[in-house]
Amino acid sequence: MKNIPIILMGCGGVGRQLLQHIVSCRTLHANKGIHLRVVGVCDSKMFLVTPDVLSTEFDDAFLMDICKTKFDRLSLEQCIDSGKCEASSYAESKRKLADIAARIGYVLVDCSASSETIEVITQTLNLGCCAVLANKKPLTCSMEEFDKLFLQPRRIRHESTVGAGLPIITSLNRITSSGDEVASIIGSLSGTLGYVMSEVENGKPFSEVVKAAKDLGYTEPDPRDDLSGMDVARKGLILARLLGQRIDMNTIKIESLYPNNMGPSMMTLEDFLANGLPLLDNDIQEKVKKASLNEKVLRYVCILQNSMCMIGIHEVPKDSALGRLKGSDNVVEIYSRCYEKPLVIQGAGAGNDTTAAGVLADIIDLQDQFP
Amino acid sequence: MKNIPIILMGCGGVGRQLLQHIVSCRTLHANKGIHLRVVGVCDSKMFLVTPDVLSTEFDDAFLMDICKTKFDRLSLEQCIDSGKCEASSYAESKRKLADIAARIGYVLVDCSASSETIEVITQTLNLGCCAVLANKKPLTCSMEEFDKLFLQPRRIRHESTVGAGLPIITSLNRITSSGDEVASIIGSLSGTLGYVMSEVENGKPFSEVVKAAKDLGYTEPDPRDDLSGMDVARKGLILARLLGQRIDMNTIKIESLYPNNMGPSMMTLEDFLANGLPLLDNDIQEKVKKASLNEKVLRYVCILQNSMCMIGIHEVPKDSALGRLKGSDNVVEIYSRCYEKPLVIQGAGAGNDTTAAGVLADIIDLQDQFP
Repeated sequence: MKNIPIILMGCGGVGRQLLQHIVSCRTLHANKGIHLRVVGVCDSKMFLVTPDVLSTEFDDAFLMDICKTKFDRLSLEQCIDSGKCEASSYAESKRKLADIAARIGYVLVDCSASSETIEVITQTLNLGCCAVLANKKPLTCSMEEFDKLFLQPRRIRHESTVGAGLPIITSLNRITSSGDEVASIIGSLSGTLGYVMSEVENGKPFSEVVKAAKDLGYTEPDPRDDLSGMDVARKGLILARLLGQRIDMNTIKIESLYPNNMGPSMMTLEDFLANGLPLLDNDIQEKVKKASLNEKVLRYVCILQNSMCMIGIHEVPKDSALGRLKGSDNVVEIYSRCYEKPLVIQGAGAGNDTTAAGVLADIIDLQDQFP
Repeated sequence: MKNIPIILMGCGGVGRQLLQHIVSCRTLHANKGIHLRVVGVCDSKMFLVTPDVLSTEFDDAFLMDICKTKFDRLSLEQCIDSGKCEASSYAESKRKLADIAARIGYVLVDCSASSETIEVITQTLNLGCCAVLANKKPLTCSMEEFDKLFLQPRRIRHESTVGAGLPIITSLNRITSSGDEVASIIGSLSGTLGYVMSEVENGKPFSEVVKAAKDLGYTEPDPRDDLSGMDVARKGLILARLLGQRIDMNTIKIESLYPNNMGPSMMTLEDFLANGLPLLDNDIQEKVKKASLNEKVLRYVCILQNSMCMIGIHEVPKDSALGRLKGSDNVVEIYSRCYEKPLVIQGAGAGNDTTAAGVLADIIDLQDQFP
């Protein structure tokens, strides 16, 4: 039986779902000769480690306790059980991880949303261990820090940073390693903005569509977090860097769907929804009409082409995979020598279940790094 | 530099293209710390091996000689060069491979179309080496023989056996290893039949579409080889077995697009094209019309559901990924817990360039098996 020790950072939605997946897949993985052994978990405050990382692990009951605690939005402090774990503060995690790496190889799984995890991820990789990321932030830091993460590219996986569990990064890595030259990528990488753009196409006012999306729980609590395009830009930057573009967040042209004077520092959320948002309706409606005259529709996309990365509204042919997109699916079109007509990957690109499934597939894909 | 020794079986279209890809990707792979070292090639007659598999390899000039020879439809015998290789007959390949495996680990790459390679592939895997297949035949043998190939599933790859380079098998393996339960798969896995079905949808007679496809070089020399559905059935069987179905070719329900009395043993190709094929027009046209009344279109698909595998004409919604398919693209819709709306993968599913690219990506993906 191959034994893969796991240390999880971030036990919110995705991390919690991952623990549940690990527990429910025990038989499946045993049949493949794999045992996933969770030896540590941490949130922003606490780091819990099994007393002896070489021979013990958190049992399934304890993992389910952790899930319940985090579901109740409590700290891991609640889970401290002297028989089952040793607790230290999150601040000590760097030293603790070094201790563990000296004893066993492990996979550090980052399901947090923090930009601070990059330090322990880099340390983990430098110490010969592996990392799996659902967290986009460490991959959208400076180019210098990004390079450090990929010094040993076979020991890091991050499928769930773009399109949740959709096999976008896996596919892109296969294409580039086969020497096929990617000419361009165009993708709708935000389920929220995909929904918004396909609804305004049907004639509904932008402001009403955004408010409906908020009510459906499709947007962040403040929809401007989606409308700014920053989340799409992070995904675009990750794809761009995989294609070899040496760029930073500040090099990317990002079109925000609201003007600066409606930003969170200028306008409250209530004011934005009631008075700001409706002012944007006409402009969007004009663009929808103009596109329609050319048999095109508007999509909020990421475009990678000619060493450029652009994020914003774009007219796409009505009968392309992007143009036919409905609802909150993600879609990516990859154009290359082999795919003059694009390789299209489409499906649900968000959700804890799907994202955690992508993380778990990444962990399993690292199995050859373990004896 | 990681060194991956390769032995290629079958140097026809795909194999030849693979050798060209390997040569043209030298710098790309060197930058990733990988050197692909071709130490042997064989066709149905000859097996050429480098004089010392431990330290020598076929140089790029020799590999290009092989490509040219096979392009000219000559035997590898023409390439025998006492300074560069040792030649033996294909019949000796089993013994030769055992000798090589005793000295180095290698990847056996099967780009042939033979059902006989299964013996040396199984031997290769049993001896601790790796295999990459573009050849479907070894995977569509008996369940017993199939099981032997997957005793060490990490050492065998076969993406190019379904949909050429499209990341279908990679994606399916990721989904199943994450514990996501696949409910069904429906796919158009023949570029030829995809083209035929989308053309008859536009009102053209079936017989004319098939003849046009033949003239365009989309079909096999005898189009009945495509119309029989056997090639799609092989792909369907491979996907079914990946999902855990323990079935054989003779368990699959295959709908042929021509009746038994028009088969190759009953009718010459000329007679079939001139007199047989037109008799089938009415029936297909009726089906097209019937489907159209329900906002559906006909596709020749593989359906995997409830432990069943069916191959044949099926009505699909006009506005689904399958229904919108045009031309010779392949498309696969995967339905699962995470993908209630399907995960869709679409793109070119044939061609030597794309197929060889998929094989090369598989080889690179095996790199962790090499020291």
